[in-house]
Amino acid sequence: MERLPGFRDFFPEPLLAKDASSFELRDYIFSRWRETAKVYGFREYDGPPLETLELYTTKSGAEIVGQLYNFVDKGDRAVAMRPEMTPTLARMVASAERSYKKPIKWFAIPQLFRYERQQKGRLREHFQLNADIVGEADPAADAELIALLIDTLRAFGLTEDDFVIRLSSRNAWQDFFAARCPDPTKAYDFYQVVDKIEREKPEITEEKLKALGIAASDVTDFIKGGQPTQELETVLNQLRGRDGLDRFVQIDYSIIRGLAYYTGVVFEAFAKGATMRAIAGGGRYNNLVKVISGGKVDLPALGFGMGDVVLADLLEEKKLTPGLRASIDAFVIIEDESLRPDSLLVVQRLRQAKISTEFFLTAGKSDKQFKRAIELSAAVTVRCLAKDGNTHCQVRDLRSRKDEEVSLSEVAGAVTRIVRAG
Amino acid sequence: MERLPGFRDFFPEPLLAKDASSFELRDYIFSRWRETAKVYGFREYDGPPLETLELYTTKSGAEIVGQLYNFVDKGDRAVAMRPEMTPTLARMVASAERSYKKPIKWFAIPQLFRYERQQKGRLREHFQLNADIVGEADPAADAELIALLIDTLRAFGLTEDDFVIRLSSRNAWQDFFAARCPDPTKAYDFYQVVDKIEREKPEITEEKLKALGIAASDVTDFIKGGQPTQELETVLNQLRGRDGLDRFVQIDYSIIRGLAYYTGVVFEAFAKGATMRAIAGGGRYNNLVKVISGGKVDLPALGFGMGDVVLADLLEEKKLTPGLRASIDAFVIIEDESLRPDSLLVVQRLRQAKISTEFFLTAGKSDKQFKRAIELSAAVTVRCLAKDGNTHCQVRDLRSRKDEEVSLSEVAGAVTRIVRAG
Repeated sequence: MERLPGFRDFFPEPLLAKDASSFELRDYIFSRWRETAKVYGFREYDGPPLETLELYTTKSGAEIVGQLYNFVDKGDRAVAMRPEMTPTLARMVASAERSYKKPIKWFAIPQLFRYERQQKGRLREHFQLNADIVGEADPAADAELIALLIDTLRAFGLTEDDFVIRLSSRNAWQDFFAARCPDPTKAYDFYQVVDKIEREKPEITEEKLKALGIAASDVTDFIKGGQPTQELETVLNQLRGRDGLDRFVQIDYSIIRGLAYYTGVVFEAFAKGATMRAIAGGGRYNNLVKVISGGKVDLPALGFGMGDVVLADLLEEKKLTPGLRASIDAFVIIEDESLRPDSLLVVQRLRQAKISTEFFLTAGKSDKQFKRAIELSAAVTVRCLAKDGNTHCQVRDLRSRKDEEVSLSEVAGAVTRIVRAG
Repeated sequence: MERLPGFRDFFPEPLLAKDASSFELRDYIFSRWRETAKVYGFREYDGPPLETLELYTTKSGAEIVGQLYNFVDKGDRAVAMRPEMTPTLARMVASAERSYKKPIKWFAIPQLFRYERQQKGRLREHFQLNADIVGEADPAADAELIALLIDTLRAFGLTEDDFVIRLSSRNAWQDFFAARCPDPTKAYDFYQVVDKIEREKPEITEEKLKALGIAASDVTDFIKGGQPTQELETVLNQLRGRDGLDRFVQIDYSIIRGLAYYTGVVFEAFAKGATMRAIAGGGRYNNLVKVISGGKVDLPALGFGMGDVVLADLLEEKKLTPGLRASIDAFVIIEDESLRPDSLLVVQRLRQAKISTEFFLTAGKSDKQFKRAIELSAAVTVRCLAKDGNTHCQVRDLRSRKDEEVSLSEVAGAVTRIVRAG
């Protein structure tokens, strides 16, 4: 029986099979994400992986349905497996915002699902770090969020040689557009043209802009000019004040973020060098909580998302994945089956002391047991020895190769000392 | 917009709303689960939350479909959100068992989904600790797994006054049945009768047993007798050897576990006292890997599952949920906006030193800032002060109420010392 195409199995340690994923690498990525978000005072939340379909169509329109794992449940509800976290966040915040001081600073690590028929060999799920600030309109919040993004990437050992934050503003483009086109309903069409400008043929871009009454040269000049707005200036200043974090940022108006719901500052973390792809993206969405709550709650908000798959690829390319390997604190070697009861007692005492401990469940040659201890990178081996009618324990520090002999009641303390010192 | 019935939102901290779930409590439960499993040398894995429907019908028969979140995806595949983890584990092990030394000791904390139409107000998802040992037929593996189950419950502060492991054996029942009924194809019908014996009316049980040619008194005598088989004796002995863990266990043949796939030792962790319900259950399923792999891989296996909802209820009943509260290491108070740039530098330096740090993103009264620091249970406050043309930092230990004054370059070190000592 096979797993579904586009989904991953996470095996405990990296396998040789090239399409296998490793739980250890996933755990490493999640741990760095959590650690950095907590250092910034963000608090973790989660929502259901299944929501009403309406939650997503309200935010993104009916066209999103083509990309979803959606179905009708046994209670005749139209539902979808979550393709993104922001609608859930907006729903949760709207339902409980009175219980929380503003700004709310929350993060989550949801698994997200997208079904796109044409994506042969591509993943249909990934995990994403989502960090959001709700209830603060000042650009200081944008600076706080971008600082978190930079420090999250730095937590993996990535440097300014590896990535850049391309910073832009929907507001800047809105002013640009309003000065040139009198019809505000066409603003979103215009943003879509700008969003595709790096990928689209120049003739097509030119034609589309012409239809909006805007000269293509005007747009490219504005991008090249790259003058920060007042708002972006504040963001840059506050990043500079944080030990020069502005060195990771460049104003880049070619970034506009395709999604309709962005309202202010927008940004992307972009891998430099050969890779050249977005590793994370986000921005302000000051209207979403209002839309999702049907007008009941109105709070400014901003956030970013960073996926595990693109990040893992980048870390592997830069050789920044740690040497992950199974390891254990102690291995209890049972040389004589008559000593199994005492050995079991040792195992139990070590585990009670929170020392991770392995042993052979059934009889085995002692050199085979020792070999397994080495494979598991055990720090210590313990053997029970019958001596003068008593059982003693020989504790070996596998780093120093030094032995010491202790009584059954001393063994947990002796092993703890070695493991802690290591 | 509402969340789906039967699903939970996990808010960062416990809310007053009675139907809200807390991420902190979930995190507390997951952390104890992980910690104990690792101490026992179990390694974490995960699989997809969506699998082929066939994976579940192969294991449990077509009748399971009525309880699933199943649908047809856009590629015309019959799929289901996972209702349990064991089929995924069996699939994964079968696909990669050659890469792993036996026995394989793995655990996972999947979210599982069941749709049952009649369950008004009941949850349709929960998280479950799944721990399994694959590739070891000896009862020593059963003892290892039951020891993990006991120590997992003890990690939450539960004692022998709170729970008991009811230990039984499909083998014992199989022998009982074979000695009385010549038709082995009826064995599963018989197990179902035994499984329901505590809930069913005695007359109905009697009638069903009669149809199988078995006297009800014979069955109740066998349960009352409670003599451990050789296999269960070994399990008990090995638990006794582990510092007397057998005191948590009693032989109870009324436990048989309803599911068809169990083959040997079976057990349940049962809450004592007013609660009286199963908190975890498991046993041997020596044929499942073979069935799931279509006969390609044949490995003995055993495992248990423990759900987060039943456990959390029990912990709350026993007042064993810790006092969970938002907390932070340091709060930087900005009394004078002209000192915001220096204060931002302090925030950044503290966070670089992995000190979780909060501050007001915009100007606020200093007593309001201090109040927020107290609400967040900050260990330290830091204020920048302009003095003789230089900026100094006043670091206050909120436990001892002692102040010290340090330079900008010393602040991270000073705060680290206080936080570590606390």
